[in-house]
Amino acid sequence: MKDIHQLTPGEIRAIIRRGKWDKPTAGLAMGYAQANLVILPQKYAFDFLLFCQRNPKPCPLLEVLEPGEFRTKFLSLEADIRTDIPLYHIYQKGKLRHTIKEIRSFWKPDFVTFLLGCSFSFEEAMLRSNIPVRHIEENKNVPMFITHIPCKAAGVFHGPMVVTMRPIPSEKVARAVQITSRYTSVHGAPIHIGDPSILGIKDLRKPDFGDPVTIKKGEIPVFWACGVTPQAVVMKARPDLCITHVPGHMFISDLLNEELAVL
Amino acid sequence: MKDIHQLTPGEIRAIIRRGKWDKPTAGLAMGYAQANLVILPQKYAFDFLLFCQRNPKPCPLLEVLEPGEFRTKFLSLEADIRTDIPLYHIYQKGKLRHTIKEIRSFWKPDFVTFLLGCSFSFEEAMLRSNIPVRHIEENKNVPMFITHIPCKAAGVFHGPMVVTMRPIPSEKVARAVQITSRYTSVHGAPIHIGDPSILGIKDLRKPDFGDPVTIKKGEIPVFWACGVTPQAVVMKARPDLCITHVPGHMFISDLLNEELAVL
Repeated sequence: MKDIHQLTPGEIRAIIRRGKWDKPTAGLAMGYAQANLVILPQKYAFDFLLFCQRNPKPCPLLEVLEPGEFRTKFLSLEADIRTDIPLYHIYQKGKLRHTIKEIRSFWKPDFVTFLLGCSFSFEEAMLRSNIPVRHIEENKNVPMFITHIPCKAAGVFHGPMVVTMRPIPSEKVARAVQITSRYTSVHGAPIHIGDPSILGIKDLRKPDFGDPVTIKKGEIPVFWACGVTPQAVVMKARPDLCITHVPGHMFISDLLNEELAVL
Repeated sequence: MKDIHQLTPGEIRAIIRRGKWDKPTAGLAMGYAQANLVILPQKYAFDFLLFCQRNPKPCPLLEVLEPGEFRTKFLSLEADIRTDIPLYHIYQKGKLRHTIKEIRSFWKPDFVTFLLGCSFSFEEAMLRSNIPVRHIEENKNVPMFITHIPCKAAGVFHGPMVVTMRPIPSEKVARAVQITSRYTSVHGAPIHIGDPSILGIKDLRKPDFGDPVTIKKGEIPVFWACGVTPQAVVMKARPDLCITHVPGHMFISDLLNEELAVL
């Protein structure tokens, strides 16, 4: 078998579909956008779509499928959402019940699929501009923090915004803002630069999720809205059923990151 | 009474609320974003929200209210959507039935309100950059054309994209793209530059809506997605009931156009 890192998105999805890859997708199909997955029964779909519309920074929608539809039309013309993600979590009333490699037997005709942008896209653009991405350098997960900034509620969905933090050298902060601003559909510009206490974050060494990273002298903590926000909000609402990807095990699309850039 | 052109958005809405202004809103509250209005019964709301998500250029959502809610929270903290628009159209099964100054007696608890961005916002930015806006110079309505480009369908909603055309001097086309790209929530960048036949437009002198404008030597026709698209699509779906603003008689928000710019 060829090294998976040299394969196209379609080839990688075919391997995943056959159950031959259940590991994280970071570093695969470089240049192509990856997406977060949330599947909800139709009765929650309007509220969740509205939640995403009101909170586009943490919840940047890339594609939403019609009720019952499991084939994408925008992110790929030949993907099957029931099989093409390496690993799925199935939650009932907010409790994790199953972690499985495909969800065909769980599929119901009222399921609505939401695919949301992921920060992999803008991190690649940062690296190309020689802006350091510390957790990649240190081979860690990005540090994530629950802030005290409330999202705009919609129906049953509400909760605080979760953010990621990347330490950026002072002289490169403006450039980091410019670059990530281009990618509005993958979290966009930072929501906060500097003093973490204003967000209600007490200690940058103790993230709520992910790993702490080194902040060097002359670096400023920069905060972006995080795709964990919608998952946290959905869990809190305890829907009868919810299916998500397992963190880091994303949907790999046929869309280039550059196709997501606005300017 | 003070000249209405000198009043704030809140002061103007108060006049409209009292039924004292039922004329177009172009030129009022300069600098502030104005919005298109679509109100639909809840049973159509998910499909329409999905249609807007899939077609953000013609249907840039600025705010969507919960079912039954008639007070905005984002575009203004003190607006009432039932009274604060100069003139409303009420459609039944796609047929225009009433043109009225307020809709309180028609209001139902399952109504979902959608407010969509309007090109007034980016035209102001173009003028500030000394890019001509011909229909404003000629005191006409912007020329609008039905293209043969289909929107992405969602549920019962489907139809062709409607575009506006502005002739731009060749040397300013790039700048016009840059400026309008900043305003993704008010139609964003052009969808097409040059040859109208590629869009299925036969004669620029015969717009489907609005007025023809002069195209001078050295100017290129530039096409932007138009807010008439969602109205046309809704009419075609013939919902039991639909309420819109009368064209040109917009909702005036408290949000500055500059607050809508992404970069």
